[in-house]
Amino acid sequence: MAQTKLVECGVIRTRAGYGLPGRLLAIYEGVRDLIAKHKPIALAVEDVFYAKNAQTTLILGHARGVVLLAGAQAGLPVHEYPPREIKKAVTGTGGATKEQVQFMVTRLLRLKSAPEPSDAADGVAAALTYCLSVGIPVL
Amino acid sequence: MAQTKLVECGVIRTRAGYGLPGRLLAIYEGVRDLIAKHKPIALAVEDVFYAKNAQTTLILGHARGVVLLAGAQAGLPVHEYPPREIKKAVTGTGGATKEQVQFMVTRLLRLKSAPEPSDAADGVAAALTYCLSVGIPVL
Repeated sequence: MAQTKLVECGVIRTRAGYGLPGRLLAIYEGVRDLIAKHKPIALAVEDVFYAKNAQTTLILGHARGVVLLAGAQAGLPVHEYPPREIKKAVTGTGGATKEQVQFMVTRLLRLKSAPEPSDAADGVAAALTYCLSVGIPVL
Repeated sequence: MAQTKLVECGVIRTRAGYGLPGRLLAIYEGVRDLIAKHKPIALAVEDVFYAKNAQTTLILGHARGVVLLAGAQAGLPVHEYPPREIKKAVTGTGGATKEQVQFMVTRLLRLKSAPEPSDAADGVAAALTYCLSVGIPVL
């Protein structure tokens, strides 16, 4: 049976100078290009309902919106998981720390080092949650 | 001198059954098609930072994100105006009611009746705010 393998992970960074519409375009194109490159069968996204304040929540919503759009345009099923569910799936406890998530992602995928920054590990953890939920063998 | 004229207004409605990614796709395609149809020189959007609760704010952010993306992809300058600024521009007072906004939009554009629903009038008011801010003659 094929071993679940990490092919790529990372974060998409944008420049404040682009303005919000330009930054959203960069995020959208980044995700669209990754979908074209790797031809995934599903998109897994952390389901965040509460940010520190209303403006942060709104901006986060903008970014999430264009990511979900890229998935929908590619015809991918989009799976959204609350942070606690992701932590529980990969570490066994919904209250795990970022370090615990990084540790388990590294172990489950037999990586030489933890994905950096921790946001990239969070993305990988969301993908692993999808794998585990549909019975794709991990480890 | 050409009279500023309303060519189209309305609201894009989506079905809850489509799921969030599908609804975002419908909003995005709706705005993209309107841009292709009318070839505007700018996109004016209400700048809303606070909704009633965090989840509403997040969902609103998703929808706004794909609208701003459609503008950025078309190379349009995107103008965001706070609700108070829009109300002040079209009615003279930042504390105007929805009815006052509908009344002034109807008058400024010499319409036979107010745009319905009031959300459509709010969209037209945002467009008028852009016109007034750059010196396009209104009335």
